[in-house]
Amino acid sequence: MPSTHLSFASREAHHAWLVSQAKLPAGFRVGTMRFDFVPREAPKPAKMTLTLIALDQPTPDFAALFTKNALPGAPIIVGRRRLEEATLGAIIVNNKVSNVCAPGGIEASEKICAETARLLKLKPEQILPCSTGVIGWGLPVDAMLGALPEAVGTLKGESILPAAEGIVTTDLYPKIRRAELGGGSIVGIAKGAGMIEPNMATMLVYILTDLAVPRGELRAMLRRAVDATFNTISVDSDTSTSDTVALVSSGKVQGVGAAEFEKALTTVCRDLAEDVVRNGEGVRHVIRVQVQRADSGELARALGKAIVNAPLFKCAVAGNDPNVGRLVQAIGKHVGAFAPATDLSRLKLTMGGIEIFAGGVFQLNPEKETALVAHLKAAELYASVIPKDGIFAAAIHYPPHERCVEIGVDLGSGAGAATVIGGDLTHEYVSENADYRS
Amino acid sequence: MPSTHLSFASREAHHAWLVSQAKLPAGFRVGTMRFDFVPREAPKPAKMTLTLIALDQPTPDFAALFTKNALPGAPIIVGRRRLEEATLGAIIVNNKVSNVCAPGGIEASEKICAETARLLKLKPEQILPCSTGVIGWGLPVDAMLGALPEAVGTLKGESILPAAEGIVTTDLYPKIRRAELGGGSIVGIAKGAGMIEPNMATMLVYILTDLAVPRGELRAMLRRAVDATFNTISVDSDTSTSDTVALVSSGKVQGVGAAEFEKALTTVCRDLAEDVVRNGEGVRHVIRVQVQRADSGELARALGKAIVNAPLFKCAVAGNDPNVGRLVQAIGKHVGAFAPATDLSRLKLTMGGIEIFAGGVFQLNPEKETALVAHLKAAELYASVIPKDGIFAAAIHYPPHERCVEIGVDLGSGAGAATVIGGDLTHEYVSENADYRS
Repeated sequence: MPSTHLSFASREAHHAWLVSQAKLPAGFRVGTMRFDFVPREAPKPAKMTLTLIALDQPTPDFAALFTKNALPGAPIIVGRRRLEEATLGAIIVNNKVSNVCAPGGIEASEKICAETARLLKLKPEQILPCSTGVIGWGLPVDAMLGALPEAVGTLKGESILPAAEGIVTTDLYPKIRRAELGGGSIVGIAKGAGMIEPNMATMLVYILTDLAVPRGELRAMLRRAVDATFNTISVDSDTSTSDTVALVSSGKVQGVGAAEFEKALTTVCRDLAEDVVRNGEGVRHVIRVQVQRADSGELARALGKAIVNAPLFKCAVAGNDPNVGRLVQAIGKHVGAFAPATDLSRLKLTMGGIEIFAGGVFQLNPEKETALVAHLKAAELYASVIPKDGIFAAAIHYPPHERCVEIGVDLGSGAGAATVIGGDLTHEYVSENADYRS
Repeated sequence: MPSTHLSFASREAHHAWLVSQAKLPAGFRVGTMRFDFVPREAPKPAKMTLTLIALDQPTPDFAALFTKNALPGAPIIVGRRRLEEATLGAIIVNNKVSNVCAPGGIEASEKICAETARLLKLKPEQILPCSTGVIGWGLPVDAMLGALPEAVGTLKGESILPAAEGIVTTDLYPKIRRAELGGGSIVGIAKGAGMIEPNMATMLVYILTDLAVPRGELRAMLRRAVDATFNTISVDSDTSTSDTVALVSSGKVQGVGAAEFEKALTTVCRDLAEDVVRNGEGVRHVIRVQVQRADSGELARALGKAIVNAPLFKCAVAGNDPNVGRLVQAIGKHVGAFAPATDLSRLKLTMGGIEIFAGGVFQLNPEKETALVAHLKAAELYASVIPKDGIFAAAIHYPPHERCVEIGVDLGSGAGAATVIGGDLTHEYVSENADYRS
């Protein structure tokens, strides 16, 4: 279940709420700088934003998880080394170019770190670099070095909103979630809308806290929280080469309890993960699958993923069509291919709380069909607007509500359970991705 | 590589070619009957075609493979039993309703078999039933029983074309492939356009031959041929609950060599499998991935599937956008999640024969980019037409050519190789599937 149930009537209302969530924890400052550059690989100019998150003092208490994609970006390779360092002083993020498998990518990343460190009077190995955007392009190092002093010049300790806005690419709106506890706070921001089926972490997530938690505990808590949240979402089954989630404590506020902190951290992660799906490329319905009584937690999660990644079911949801046959197909495909020993004889399925399958057969009638359509329509974030030029675009730039298409899967067998969040497959997704780079 | 390289300038030219391929092998007759009915589950009338494929005499030499989806249709359950029978006399196929997990589905299927048998003077257990169409709806048994005599009345031994046309659902055109050898022939038909990532067989495929091959050999050959062909394609990563491929010999022509027969059978299967993708729902580009020097054949096939099933890469191909970063993402995702021990340091990638990745980095420049765009455009089957009502539909109803987007993946390591065929992800796919049942 969602930890919050927000709804917004307008982009302005959403923005006002973001501002209310954005207060930085003690000990952090953020700054950004937006500039034009001409990529080596493309004929026309592009825009990049540099986002800097700096600590007042370097901290030993930081954690980060990175993508399991086997062809990761250069910043991921550098970032993994940074985990071995004694302290972290700042995070430097650029959008537009992901620096994945580009010639000289690691050297480029290290140059940005070195200049950031020089300007902040830190060591290069105290800087965590992150990049997101087009895969294959190289970083415009000179243009970035030129922009860095201005990013440093804008550093301020009030709001995380400039950073939440600075790291986006195809996102429709910035994403911020916060928890307040123990006299301090945990504040997280996320970007990511496509290439989202995280495996260890999502696109780019930064969680800052002033609450003092030692490095070892911080890293263990982040691993558990991410596994229960970001690793259970999928927008399009594609796993980014740049996924990163970082958690940094400035240690300014002492005395928070470990259990209390982990609970709040997990809530912030879950809210951000849902935000990422809700703002997923072309997503017009969020689909929440709650699987219970499976033989294992792994099977439960895999079944949930199989459902939210099944293109035909995703299309049916987009059309407010309760085509439950495609839901059964998705379950049967996964079990047949990966878990053939599973007993499906006690399988029960619900949509919007309405029983649709039990005892080996569908449980359908025209009244239920009407109710299912109503459930789908109520969960729609916005209706498709047919474009004159054939390029479908999102009709809204804020999340109007947090309702989901609710799918229940009960295997009537073991103790395994999982909740998986995904989105539908729409014309807006195809329009966004069939001509994204041009 | 494709076994044939056809191209057609018009639907009429394609139809004339189908007619030239359609001569039935000795010992078979086909008949069809199209009629209206009102589904119990939906408010408005629908159309169904019954297709009957009958042997002059029942044969012991038949083989069939069925879906591995763990929630299979009732005809699949009945069909598996039929494999134990001494002989097969006829196949009865209906479209529009798939009879999957519908209450009383097996009894309905057996009723159709019993009446078909009575009309043909056979036993019910000599009839193989098949159904394709909406999942969840029950068979309109009375309407089907009423239509059966006319289907029997149209039985003729000349052309398989009426059957190829009778079994379709969302297919844009019928699919027939033939091989002639040893004084007889092998003729196959296929339907299937969506919910296509077969696991043992594709949607519905019937292959008829007059060449005498004993049952045991026939079954082993079919298993190998299907594994090398239908099991290497994917339109949308969804595995149907009704996949069936049947191979039936009337035994009229003696003396064909086993190796020669298997080679011709495999060619017919490969051609039909490619036809299924080429006519896949919304497919505007066929993508052929040839993986070589992988650590195993299984890894090679899995990598090929990971590429043709990656939504972002599929969208890029749809837009004639050589977004090779998404290709790398798909490979890295699969290896990271399922084969993390794989060494990718010698990975080489080509598109249209052009090297795009080697030595751990992209090998790109503006000239290559231009050539890659030209390769993508040459493989396009038809251009998207922007619709006034927002519902995208295929602009052609015949396969204009057999060119593919050619992807080469060389891991520089083992002896594993595989060729995988898939399609792009388009507005036409979303339009077809976001409102398919209505």
